[in-house]
Amino acid sequence: MEHAAGSSKTHTLEILDTTLRDGAQGEGLSFSVQDKLAVVHALDELGITWIEAGNPGSNPKDGEFFSQLPKLEQAKFCAFGATRKPRSKCADDPQIKSLLKAETEAVALFGKSWDFHVKNVLRISEEENLAMIFETIEYLKAKGRIVFFDAEHFFDGWKANPDYALNTLQTAHKAGADRIILCDTNGGSFPDQITAGVAAAFSVLGGSGSLGIHAHNDMGLAIAASIAAVEAGCTHVQGTLIGFGERCGNTSLAALIPSLQLKLGYVCLPEERLARISELSRLVAEIANMPLSSSIPYVGSSAFSHKGGMHGDGVLKVNRSFEHIDPMLVGNDRHFLMSEVGGRSAVAERARKIDRSITRDHEAVKVVAEKIKTMEAAGWAFEGADGSFELLVRRELGLYKPLFSILAYRVMSEHPTSEAIACNHAWVKVWVDGQDEVAAAEGNGPVHALDSALRRALKRFFPSLEQVRLTDYKVRVINGGAGSAAKVRVLIESSDGHQSWNTVGVSEDIIDASRIALVDSIEYKLIGAST
Amino acid sequence: MEHAAGSSKTHTLEILDTTLRDGAQGEGLSFSVQDKLAVVHALDELGITWIEAGNPGSNPKDGEFFSQLPKLEQAKFCAFGATRKPRSKCADDPQIKSLLKAETEAVALFGKSWDFHVKNVLRISEEENLAMIFETIEYLKAKGRIVFFDAEHFFDGWKANPDYALNTLQTAHKAGADRIILCDTNGGSFPDQITAGVAAAFSVLGGSGSLGIHAHNDMGLAIAASIAAVEAGCTHVQGTLIGFGERCGNTSLAALIPSLQLKLGYVCLPEERLARISELSRLVAEIANMPLSSSIPYVGSSAFSHKGGMHGDGVLKVNRSFEHIDPMLVGNDRHFLMSEVGGRSAVAERARKIDRSITRDHEAVKVVAEKIKTMEAAGWAFEGADGSFELLVRRELGLYKPLFSILAYRVMSEHPTSEAIACNHAWVKVWVDGQDEVAAAEGNGPVHALDSALRRALKRFFPSLEQVRLTDYKVRVINGGAGSAAKVRVLIESSDGHQSWNTVGVSEDIIDASRIALVDSIEYKLIGAST
Repeated sequence: MEHAAGSSKTHTLEILDTTLRDGAQGEGLSFSVQDKLAVVHALDELGITWIEAGNPGSNPKDGEFFSQLPKLEQAKFCAFGATRKPRSKCADDPQIKSLLKAETEAVALFGKSWDFHVKNVLRISEEENLAMIFETIEYLKAKGRIVFFDAEHFFDGWKANPDYALNTLQTAHKAGADRIILCDTNGGSFPDQITAGVAAAFSVLGGSGSLGIHAHNDMGLAIAASIAAVEAGCTHVQGTLIGFGERCGNTSLAALIPSLQLKLGYVCLPEERLARISELSRLVAEIANMPLSSSIPYVGSSAFSHKGGMHGDGVLKVNRSFEHIDPMLVGNDRHFLMSEVGGRSAVAERARKIDRSITRDHEAVKVVAEKIKTMEAAGWAFEGADGSFELLVRRELGLYKPLFSILAYRVMSEHPTSEAIACNHAWVKVWVDGQDEVAAAEGNGPVHALDSALRRALKRFFPSLEQVRLTDYKVRVINGGAGSAAKVRVLIESSDGHQSWNTVGVSEDIIDASRIALVDSIEYKLIGAST
Repeated sequence: MEHAAGSSKTHTLEILDTTLRDGAQGEGLSFSVQDKLAVVHALDELGITWIEAGNPGSNPKDGEFFSQLPKLEQAKFCAFGATRKPRSKCADDPQIKSLLKAETEAVALFGKSWDFHVKNVLRISEEENLAMIFETIEYLKAKGRIVFFDAEHFFDGWKANPDYALNTLQTAHKAGADRIILCDTNGGSFPDQITAGVAAAFSVLGGSGSLGIHAHNDMGLAIAASIAAVEAGCTHVQGTLIGFGERCGNTSLAALIPSLQLKLGYVCLPEERLARISELSRLVAEIANMPLSSSIPYVGSSAFSHKGGMHGDGVLKVNRSFEHIDPMLVGNDRHFLMSEVGGRSAVAERARKIDRSITRDHEAVKVVAEKIKTMEAAGWAFEGADGSFELLVRRELGLYKPLFSILAYRVMSEHPTSEAIACNHAWVKVWVDGQDEVAAAEGNGPVHALDSALRRALKRFFPSLEQVRLTDYKVRVINGGAGSAAKVRVLIESSDGHQSWNTVGVSEDIIDASRIALVDSIEYKLIGAST
């Protein structure tokens, strides 16, 4: 393997994203038609070649989606389906009909390569399976489709009965399949087995075979398997952008592509698009309503985070010392985490954004570092709460005193509701510069009611709050074992249309934790802090 | 590579877990002394050989922890530190003193192998770095310690200046290091580079060298790198049980060990302990207050979950068809997910636990499958809520009518509190079999108050509720973009000391979502359902 460090980009790879098909089989995932359109546009913006958009034959929602495919900048659509039913004709098969009705440029067709499956799952003869592969591909080719043949369980099949597994590939090739994708469907093959399996496939198909890889992460080796396959000659790579997929997921393209493109000299995406991969990965996670793992390679929020004091020090001296690539190349950021093991260097680095003169040995830096240790032990986390962290530093530097206080509040949740009163309502009394003000509001839930009442009471004094809105609200139970008496951490993201900031609150009482984070959010806006 | 499928277990590997040291540098992690003790016992129960328990010289909390190390069944402790400071003596170095004071059987000592770091981070001469390595190891050996030399950035160093990198290993070897661990500190090396680096190390150390591997997951290749190193002759493997660690984390031992032991024929853990790895991984996640990724290989809750209709059907016919190993071998379970793509087979499989006669074509199965689709689109998730799912099926089968109803409730959160009234209190009125009852309770938060009042009101009618307690309470914001008006999903785990069950509620109002899940939890207990 030659590690070209991006210098000799000669090989172009064709990338197929199956977030909307194989990815949607991941636990906890469910895409609406709107969600799917948003994912499609994100993948197109990233410069992915093929989008496998669903299985029109098995899922009516997917069928509906294919009827409203949008025009894309460059990505092309592919519909997914199976070889025809045993002992039937392609022309009569409703599943094949819906594949054609999807009217995509390409069709990905899966068929069995493992004799064990032919016998025990399909329960048909080996010959009938070959006929199903041949006839379905031939039929779809005659209808003008580009055909990707997904050789399901190829590697398991090749280990168990190499002749039969290779015969299914040859059959697909003879029938005119444009690409043959070798699938490690159960995710149980080691990279060296992938290398050997790809070589075996080339040995029967010859140089005219165009091979692809489809790996699963059941041993944590999907990325290694995909790299092994590419190095063995596969030019088509399937995966899901952020690794969604059944069981342990599919190959994460966001984690794979930067290695292929920045380090191994393959072209997967147009060069200028790679720097958007972090942003678009977060977008897809957002659409899916799944948290993007902070530790996912290259695009995770922690992927370039430095917490250990020595690592933080090292990176401040020379970035390269603890970073394998420049995070800018994938559109990610370097972070120095505020935490007990983060060390004073990290606190000082952040404090300098407020006052350039602050050094590691400033008294306030020591006090803040100590305070963070104590608060983290009590369940706080400032790593995702830059706004609260900045207020903490400012208070310690004497650069801030509160502009308002909450004298009292009352939040009520009632059931049943009457016509006159919503289920949730709140009343708040604030004190601002010698004057008080009360306000009340209703809300969908108790926190929403409290938030609305608080803003209403403060608006008279601070009209700029008019533009502020909550853009995200997260609750984390800290000590889960204590049941409903558990301590909770609330993280709030706010925006005024120009910038956004995050604040945190911790309490055994979700209302109180929300109040703390809301107050920080408003204070941060009012001091005009800019990070 | 010979894939022995567990038959010829001849090679024994020494495993070192660094969850408490390198793992603790992961974002969002903070261990109390109690937490650390709990992690230590979990690792000991699993049969891990070495526990790297902290860095006594850099972190006073770690120092304190070493003074109270417990007696373990078989695991041994290791303290982590650095080579001596430049231009000083080991005997005068406070960091070396605290390493000795930790009184562990072994010390892991990291030193620089990359000339770039020596020059730019330490800013010393190459000779002084070699002297620091030699003298510190020699000094610790003279004090009777087993010494693991962690060659930091070995692979980067070996790529940049192989002679110097290998010289640091030879120096450590001459000084008497018991193991030399090759670290891919930045996680930027490919498996083939790991293989070549290990071979280079052996070429200068000869057969007497005892080598280890320490990999990071910045390219998603930590597991592949560790396997490559072991296959190249490393006999000591470092990682963190569930992959905690700086940036993208360390090698996850839970994801690695089953492949090594079940598929490649190495012995890492006593044979009978492997089946406890799922349980103990979840325990460590629980102690760390970090969710265990559901998709982590082998031990994640989704690792053997089948959602796609065809996969579910296949596994019901022959388990092996879509599973690379039997989940029992690692103490995990097979799941059939209740969801729109799960298909009626999965619903029927679960419904049969209630009534053996139910088939895939039963009317109730169709209705439940449809209902789940609609509810999932509205934000519900039954995948982690078996109790609510069973109630849904029973209602559809006509096997259940509610035993109680909530006529009214009121929850109040007030600030400031008076001496007489807690911040959160609730009042509930229930209706049971023609009678009503009211009760009130205070709580730490509004949900706790409501939960307490509801149980109090029902206890008169259902004394068995006395044993029920909430063991976990989770809140997930479903459409984060809507701020504090977002919809939330509440998941509750309850236990009566004999069994535990999970229920779910969804609403824009967290109190209401909690009420739904609480009612399901109580109903599930009252019908004496058993799954």
